[in-house]
Amino acid sequence: MQYEAGNYDVIVIGAGHAGAEAGLAAARQGAKTLVLTINLDMVAFMPCNPSIGGPAKGIVVREIDALGGEMGKNIDKTYIQMRMLNTGKGPAVRALRAQADKFAYQHEMKKTLENEPNLTLVQGMVESLIIEDDTCKGVITKTGAMYYSKTVIITTGTFLRGEIILGELKYSSGPNNQQPSIKLSEHLEELGFELVRFKTGTPPRVNGNTIDYSKTEIQPGDENPRAFSYETTKYITDQLPCWLTYTNEFTHQIIDANLHRSPMYSGMIKATGARYCPSIEDKVVRFKDKPRHQIFLEPEGRNTEEVYVQGLSTSLPEDIQHQLIRTVPGLEQAQMMRPGYAIEYDAIVPNQLWPTLETKKIKNLYTAGQINGTSGYEEAAGQGLMAGINAGRRALGKDEIILSRSDAYIGVLIDDLVTKGTNEPYRLLTSRAEYRLLLRHDNADMRLTEIGHKIGLISEERYQKFLAKKEKIEAERERLQSIIIKPKQEVQELIKSLGGSELKDGIKASDLLKRPEMSYAHIAQIIPSEVELDDEVIEQVEIQIKYEGYIEKSLQQVERLKKMENKKIPIDIDYDAINGLATEARQKLKTVHPLSIAQASRISGVNPADISILLVYLEQGKIARVSNE
Amino acid sequence: MQYEAGNYDVIVIGAGHAGAEAGLAAARQGAKTLVLTINLDMVAFMPCNPSIGGPAKGIVVREIDALGGEMGKNIDKTYIQMRMLNTGKGPAVRALRAQADKFAYQHEMKKTLENEPNLTLVQGMVESLIIEDDTCKGVITKTGAMYYSKTVIITTGTFLRGEIILGELKYSSGPNNQQPSIKLSEHLEELGFELVRFKTGTPPRVNGNTIDYSKTEIQPGDENPRAFSYETTKYITDQLPCWLTYTNEFTHQIIDANLHRSPMYSGMIKATGARYCPSIEDKVVRFKDKPRHQIFLEPEGRNTEEVYVQGLSTSLPEDIQHQLIRTVPGLEQAQMMRPGYAIEYDAIVPNQLWPTLETKKIKNLYTAGQINGTSGYEEAAGQGLMAGINAGRRALGKDEIILSRSDAYIGVLIDDLVTKGTNEPYRLLTSRAEYRLLLRHDNADMRLTEIGHKIGLISEERYQKFLAKKEKIEAERERLQSIIIKPKQEVQELIKSLGGSELKDGIKASDLLKRPEMSYAHIAQIIPSEVELDDEVIEQVEIQIKYEGYIEKSLQQVERLKKMENKKIPIDIDYDAINGLATEARQKLKTVHPLSIAQASRISGVNPADISILLVYLEQGKIARVSNE
Ligand SMILES: Cc1cc2nc3c(=O)[nH]c(=O)nc-3n(C[C@H](O)[C@H](O)[C@H](O)COP(=O)(O)OP(=O)(O)OC[C@H]3O[C@@H](n4cnc5c(N)ncnc54)[C@H](O)[C@@H]3O)c2cc1C
Ligand SMILES: Cc1cc2nc3c(=O)[nH]c(=O)nc-3n(C[C@H](O)[C@H](O)[C@H](O)COP(=O)(O)OP(=O)(O)OC[C@H]3O[C@@H](n4cnc5c(N)ncnc54)[C@H](O)[C@@H]3O)c2cc1C
Repeated sequence: MQYEAGNYDVIVIGAGHAGAEAGLAAARQGAKTLVLTINLDMVAFMPCNPSIGGPAKGIVVREIDALGGEMGKNIDKTYIQMRMLNTGKGPAVRALRAQADKFAYQHEMKKTLENEPNLTLVQGMVESLIIEDDTCKGVITKTGAMYYSKTVIITTGTFLRGEIILGELKYSSGPNNQQPSIKLSEHLEELGFELVRFKTGTPPRVNGNTIDYSKTEIQPGDENPRAFSYETTKYITDQLPCWLTYTNEFTHQIIDANLHRSPMYSGMIKATGARYCPSIEDKVVRFKDKPRHQIFLEPEGRNTEEVYVQGLSTSLPEDIQHQLIRTVPGLEQAQMMRPGYAIEYDAIVPNQLWPTLETKKIKNLYTAGQINGTSGYEEAAGQGLMAGINAGRRALGKDEIILSRSDAYIGVLIDDLVTKGTNEPYRLLTSRAEYRLLLRHDNADMRLTEIGHKIGLISEERYQKFLAKKEKIEAERERLQSIIIKPKQEVQELIKSLGGSELKDGIKASDLLKRPEMSYAHIAQIIPSEVELDDEVIEQVEIQIKYEGYIEKSLQQVERLKKMENKKIPIDIDYDAINGLATEARQKLKTVHPLSIAQASRISGVNPADISILLVYLEQGKIARVSNE
Repeated sequence: MQYEAGNYDVIVIGAGHAGAEAGLAAARQGAKTLVLTINLDMVAFMPCNPSIGGPAKGIVVREIDALGGEMGKNIDKTYIQMRMLNTGKGPAVRALRAQADKFAYQHEMKKTLENEPNLTLVQGMVESLIIEDDTCKGVITKTGAMYYSKTVIITTGTFLRGEIILGELKYSSGPNNQQPSIKLSEHLEELGFELVRFKTGTPPRVNGNTIDYSKTEIQPGDENPRAFSYETTKYITDQLPCWLTYTNEFTHQIIDANLHRSPMYSGMIKATGARYCPSIEDKVVRFKDKPRHQIFLEPEGRNTEEVYVQGLSTSLPEDIQHQLIRTVPGLEQAQMMRPGYAIEYDAIVPNQLWPTLETKKIKNLYTAGQINGTSGYEEAAGQGLMAGINAGRRALGKDEIILSRSDAYIGVLIDDLVTKGTNEPYRLLTSRAEYRLLLRHDNADMRLTEIGHKIGLISEERYQKFLAKKEKIEAERERLQSIIIKPKQEVQELIKSLGGSELKDGIKASDLLKRPEMSYAHIAQIIPSEVELDDEVIEQVEIQIKYEGYIEKSLQQVERLKKMENKKIPIDIDYDAINGLATEARQKLKTVHPLSIAQASRISGVNPADISILLVYLEQGKIARVSNE
């Protein structure tokens, strides 16, 4: 029996990594928000690797934080280890990565949701949406609760018609043997959404007491305290190490000998897997000549002996998994506590979405996270945040917020999804961004705090601190650009001692800093700043000056991009009325409905010739529009 | 595909409250033990009230601890509040009750299992048993793993063909929406076990931030530190309060008006519920004239805002649950985070078991916990411990351990189950024990440490401490029995000040202590002990002396019982060969197979006349036996 259960501004279906951010973002903007989830004990659950961050993903977490999201704060409260990756390389590829206490992570996020004033967290399985006039008006749960709302965000992860596969075994299930979401998937299909079938997988977990760590290499956390959130001031100093070991020819032999029992190769799994999170059987088959693959042993938390065997993701039968594990140095005697498995699920082809993550088909309905064809907690959280922002703003009668590809990795991610769609689980990589040098770990706040503040997710206090930091950076840059360092003896000696070539003449401090051997600390030795500058300010000054040339070049490119982005295309433009477009281009444009010439030019199959035609057509000013009926 | 996955002494199916104790007891006795559970994230999960202990149940926890079990230690590490109940009443009804941090409780127990040397904890769903010649030889899981063992213990709780019921909704599920265990139940049926369908229920949880506590009464924890385990030395001082409120006529009106939608009354639930854990609809219907019922608001943990609404257990539809909650003072604005529900499941009729908890039908197969028709964590844990002890001992070639009704509540519980069966979920109550004054909270160690030590579950160190304590008690009792207190002035004054009548003559210190106004502290004021005695020793001395008369009487009854217990009945006795037994008695005796005349006399339907005939028959010495074919 159905009953009216309440009215909200925003309803979020799901409290995974996307749902948690979406719910908090909506509520914190002032929207009365309901978050529904299948099982309250599994809020922000990590079904796979117990870690947050890494290349590109770590930068997304910083961006989420700069926009006022929660993931960074939550992992800062619950990590067991924190490391900055690629410290030896340029600033564009540096990224923070944390090992999580995965249970603490869940509990902390759940508590945050429970304590958020405008947010109601309720256990419930949504089975259908309330749709009137192609507009979403609410949801209906399995228990008959009809919740009404102005906007709805679906963040159902891998639950839609989920099926777990393990060797010859296949059964209907959500991740980690949770209840799958079947009716909602059928409902989306009935509404006319195009769904694809994707799959992902997870490795076995072993009991840490049965690992011989002496045969592995220790991977400790960083000694310097680090945090994802710009607001974190307390650091966890008691870190746990991870451990590195490798597969070998015996591992690979076992896999080769049992490929016929692999659901991936036997044809049992038809769904498409993530290219960048391959299973071990995939790796062995694809990289035949690689003698070994890395295996990281990662604790699942402080209060458990379960250890995640990163690198051994597999859907081979359980007996083969036992065998595989025992071939790995350190794991000869390891007890497997749970086997790895693959999961198949329905995703929405994401070019059915606007860049706000609203669906084109149903107004006021948004989707975010793994349902949009991505893979990864951070990708999910980034989308969840943006969907929460936009669904909240729609409900509150405000305009939309779209990040561009030059603003953030989150912009790249969403633009890729809605413009290109995806025919395999999409993972964010640094190589997907054309302005990598701009989208850095260190400057996420510089790029995004302004927006976060504008939409009300960054507090005034934090914003003022941010402005002060920005001012200090500017002032110090200007100081270094204005001071001429003379070739005095002490300067020459310092330069010599660093292996540089002596000054012939006076040089701007900023130009001296550009020399590879010079750091800000050296410059400050010669011309100390009168105000005290903290590390974050110094880091910015240093990077901005040292990489000035590259950054300038990127910014010029961004300028050109912005011009193209400013050439807007009305969403109801009638492409059939434009002469000369190639058939494929016309088709793609009609599917994607790009909002700007910039976006149109990124659609595969839309060529420069088509873009020129489109530009000319738009400039004429007389635009044919598709009627709304 | 099936594969051989390993050989063990003992396999435990399930890691709930029964399974955890069973696994640890077996492993700690030296048996190589495998514990299999459906979901490793749910070890020792509390699907209902977040608390351990209370009348009778609390004493069971003490008994478990005295025998070397884990429940007491685990709750001592994870409680949020501890209270001694009935402190104003006699020692027989005193009992400790703790509110648990239910997540910490799970994690702590899981870690203990993970770190137990002889124990392997593995995620796996058992679908069938390996049976040869009516003997259990192992188990087979869903993934095809065949584990062999000498003995197997089934502790599957409410998972066997579990179905969740909530208003008009009914679906296949384990507790808390976990996977149900369907195949194993079918398998047990095929093996010829008689199963019954029972049900239990749980109340809704609400968000603590939405409770107006000012309308409720605070229930703080005890200020004195207390613990369940005799080994605990560290106490948690930071306690959280619970809160008391009540239902009222409005609550009851809503229930009355919606009884037709209650699955209990609409006929949807056919299974039998626990009389002593009634749902609120039950209470309202059964106690029509009661104007209100107690509602305790209990936090589910330290790191969550979820609050358990004890007293509002229900399977009414979700919409009615929302309404019910809002009638309760303090809950007018409360957000329901999850609804209450009922669960139906299969249990084994427990008279199919020997008092060791081995099944009569299949050798080396044991069952323990809710599967045996009980309800409650403590009842489950007590059985789990005994099954673990006996299955372990069988595997190691040792004799069995059976607690008698005068040893422990656990003895009462198991004897009731195997002797009387049960046609509703069985809950332990103090009224079920005939020797209540012997089975006290305070003396569990006196009763059981000897056994715990004998079977290897109590360390030598702890045993020596126990012996020292016992000695001190004896010595002090003897001292008080030997010293005559003279009617000196200071004595008379003390007595007068306590409102007692003055001594006429000298009196034994122990006799003076028996006076109701006197406590041990008063006696010690007159004749201080030379050795220092800790509170536990003093408590024993005081209770043993003050209640000497009653205890003596109980002990005499126990003597008589022991005599009857020593009159053993061979398990293969042929009751058909005994003339004169009433038909019902003959039938019952053939079903229950009592091991002693004492047990036989407790079977309902076996009358004193039948017992006399049986006694005469046994004394003749020529006993007809059923052939083994
Ligand atoms: C087995 C496995 C292996 C993985 N391996 C990797 C990997 O190697 N690399 C990687 O980057 N990522 C991996 N992932 C993906 C990662 O887990 C997800 O990307 C991430 O959790 C997605 O977040 P999400 O918020 O979109 O979905 P989830 O975190 O899955 O959350 C979905 C939420 O929706 C809720 N929900 C679903 N249906 C309903 C409904 N009908 N009504 C109400 N609530 C509903 C659920 O209860 C849940 O709270 C893996 C996932 C799985 C399951
Ligand atoms: C909704 C609900 C309400 C309740 N209300 C009350 C109450 O009001 N008062 C009260 O005293 N008690 C109540 N209980 C009962 C209490 O939860 C149980 O008595 C107690 O948990 C039983 O412990 P157990 O160890 O027997 O089973 P559980 O704690 O349920 O553990 C069963 C274990 O077996 C495992 N398992 C099951 N099948 C398989 C299989 N095929 N293979 C491998 N593993 C398997 C499960 O994974 C689990 O680990 C309630 C229970 C539920 C579910």
